[in-house]
Amino acid sequence: MNPGIDALAFDVAPLHLPISSLAAQRNIEAEKLEKGLGLLKMTLPDVYQDPVVFGANALTKLIAQNEINLSEVARIYVGTESSIDSSKPIASFLIQLMEQKFGENCLAHCDVVDFTFACIGGVDAMQNCMDFARMNPDQKAIVVTTDIAKYDLESTGEYTQGAGATALLISAHPRIIAFDTNWATSSKGVFDFFKPYRSLSKKEITGNDQNESWLGQLEAEIEIHKDQPVFDGQYSNQCYMDRTKAAYFAFKSKAGISDCLYSRWSHIIMHLPYAFQGRRMLSEIFALDATEPLLSGTESGADYQNKLKEVSKSEAYKQFVVEKLQDAEQASSIIGNLYTGSIFMGLLSTLTQAQLRGDEISGQKFGFMAYGSGSKSKVFEGVIQNGWDAQIEKSALFTVLANSQEIDFNTYEKLHKKEQKIAVREPKHEWVLDRIETEIPHLIGARYYKWID
Amino acid sequence: MNPGIDALAFDVAPLHLPISSLAAQRNIEAEKLEKGLGLLKMTLPDVYQDPVVFGANALTKLIAQNEINLSEVARIYVGTESSIDSSKPIASFLIQLMEQKFGENCLAHCDVVDFTFACIGGVDAMQNCMDFARMNPDQKAIVVTTDIAKYDLESTGEYTQGAGATALLISAHPRIIAFDTNWATSSKGVFDFFKPYRSLSKKEITGNDQNESWLGQLEAEIEIHKDQPVFDGQYSNQCYMDRTKAAYFAFKSKAGISDCLYSRWSHIIMHLPYAFQGRRMLSEIFALDATEPLLSGTESGADYQNKLKEVSKSEAYKQFVVEKLQDAEQASSIIGNLYTGSIFMGLLSTLTQAQLRGDEISGQKFGFMAYGSGSKSKVFEGVIQNGWDAQIEKSALFTVLANSQEIDFNTYEKLHKKEQKIAVREPKHEWVLDRIETEIPHLIGARYYKWID
Repeated sequence: MNPGIDALAFDVAPLHLPISSLAAQRNIEAEKLEKGLGLLKMTLPDVYQDPVVFGANALTKLIAQNEINLSEVARIYVGTESSIDSSKPIASFLIQLMEQKFGENCLAHCDVVDFTFACIGGVDAMQNCMDFARMNPDQKAIVVTTDIAKYDLESTGEYTQGAGATALLISAHPRIIAFDTNWATSSKGVFDFFKPYRSLSKKEITGNDQNESWLGQLEAEIEIHKDQPVFDGQYSNQCYMDRTKAAYFAFKSKAGISDCLYSRWSHIIMHLPYAFQGRRMLSEIFALDATEPLLSGTESGADYQNKLKEVSKSEAYKQFVVEKLQDAEQASSIIGNLYTGSIFMGLLSTLTQAQLRGDEISGQKFGFMAYGSGSKSKVFEGVIQNGWDAQIEKSALFTVLANSQEIDFNTYEKLHKKEQKIAVREPKHEWVLDRIETEIPHLIGARYYKWID
Repeated sequence: MNPGIDALAFDVAPLHLPISSLAAQRNIEAEKLEKGLGLLKMTLPDVYQDPVVFGANALTKLIAQNEINLSEVARIYVGTESSIDSSKPIASFLIQLMEQKFGENCLAHCDVVDFTFACIGGVDAMQNCMDFARMNPDQKAIVVTTDIAKYDLESTGEYTQGAGATALLISAHPRIIAFDTNWATSSKGVFDFFKPYRSLSKKEITGNDQNESWLGQLEAEIEIHKDQPVFDGQYSNQCYMDRTKAAYFAFKSKAGISDCLYSRWSHIIMHLPYAFQGRRMLSEIFALDATEPLLSGTESGADYQNKLKEVSKSEAYKQFVVEKLQDAEQASSIIGNLYTGSIFMGLLSTLTQAQLRGDEISGQKFGFMAYGSGSKSKVFEGVIQNGWDAQIEKSALFTVLANSQEIDFNTYEKLHKKEQKIAVREPKHEWVLDRIETEIPHLIGARYYKWID
């Protein structure tokens, strides 16, 4: 039996701004965002929330919902691009918090570490845990993804914000989905989206070049961290398509498949920075790999683009989107981008839709196309297992999301600019960031959390 | 056959300050640092060097020295706690640079990602690559560790600075060392050493609480990144000892060994933040696990500490240090801390000493004790393989280190404070950071590198 996902939990930021509120302030037609990109709401962290909080909430739910015996958990691997420390991994906070809640030393021999590669780090963590489960079938691993997708005010990424975490229990005998060992990767080092430190010369700050100490900083260059990325949206889409296409055809070749690959997949789960990213990116593969190809790849540039546009608007492609992509978009539309968690949320959304409809999908094959800026794509596939529906029902995805609290534009701006100091929503049954040390020199910046009953 | 390290290369910062020069300025007796901690030199990056440069240099050497066919390299995993970006991994820069040098698309299907857990991230990366090699014996993996250990001026960590990278070729049929599958882990979430963002309220900067835009920053809180950690040296030593001890005895128990474990190891390779850290930390395990235990563990607190002090000063322990630890210390003494690379440099130092002496050590068992602050220890073991000496000779460790350029205290301070703008040493046969983009909005902070022939 192939290893895979045995249980899945999530935690999403509890506040949201309707996309229509943002559109009105930014002079964008709401319909362009809603109908064009599939965006309805974007979720936002409250003042007491950071990536550790989301990760710990998702992990706590996973443990509680599945009554996991922590002594059987050999590793907790975290995928994130929202680290709060350059050395201490979010994973080390997670064991600290779990031991606070479930008992001292309950994870004393658990191996934990953070993976970083933009939005694909969680998939990388999962792939390694799959090898681990295969070699250690009596042990379990957990993968946590956690991120805050924050973009600059008035930037073109502003309407794709979102925040939250997922937690996956990986085992050798999974009840949700089992993954095959054939994985294909496509990589290229590019700057389509990244989060560099912003260097400021002290001269810019103080107006002189004496490099005097400034607020305790002795270096002549100050490096500022921002949660917001530097990015080129259109170029990043191109990288997404190029890497995904390369990984897709590499997968097909490794698997020795000569006919259409995607027609073997009942659903396709992709990284969704916004809900309709997948359907906007996939028409080229749909055309190139069709049983009777709609594009040969030998067309001239303009001709190729024109044909591609036709394909995107065709009834056949619309049918393909409804059948294979649409279920994954549902959660994304009302959450926004989860970075590393987006692909797993797409899986949860798809399975929840199937469960709510009462579809029997055991044995169906799902295709996965992951993407991380910077850039890398991975294509792999898995088979839905018996018992998937009972496992999926536990997370009550859409019921939980329906409880999200709407905020107005003014509150959104205050949260974004870190001017909001009081919690918008009272926390309950969840982790909160209690305080950050500011006085004790050898603990400056230490973050302390507590569970609110 | 067990997988392991087939080849090993390194790159260390090319400048150094003699520890005696630092001691003189800081009013510390040089002998305390030299004889007490084993510190002789600390290596420092030149102005054109960053963690990508060191990693790329080590990787380039590994490829060239071993004539590696890059199409056989399925993954390059990086361990670092000196990331230059919160989203884009150093690994993605490495494929970009290798393709610049060895040909476009030569790593188009290589899987790359960064691992973060303080100084143990490289070991975590290696462990996962070991599983990979076991499952894919016809493919190869590379692990790169790269870090800059920079501490605040006049801090107690100042004399433990260092910088550089290692690169390990992992294969199913290794020529240097093969690792067993029995690994033990001890974890606890603590704040002994970490690198948090330092929060500054804009009010502190501007003197008013209007949260006006300041140098383009809209948030009321500014987060500053510093390369220097926040740490408590003494507490971190305690965490190092506690985690290592727990992992050591967990390893022993998993392996079902009832007599002394360390006597089965001809050498012990540990994480060395400074050269004598290992010998200072290990006396407790030496005493507790001796064939005739020198400590029972039932002594009262003061009695335990007194006996432990006696053990540390005993001839038997000194002999143990010379036999099992000293060879690893040699490189550390003239390099300083390499964070994630320190344990692998200890291995290279040990093997180089054996190779220079002409010792035949094939078949010998080495013990490894890794540590990462935050905190986690891993204990594992490996067997030296036939052909190790020819593989180790390639890196010419001490010959390369002998070419390090000495700098004076004034230059050290200017480098530390980022006041030095011109290269101290002219680069040759190595990578340099060419420029960082400051103008184009969607590329702000992008780093460009070039190879200097």
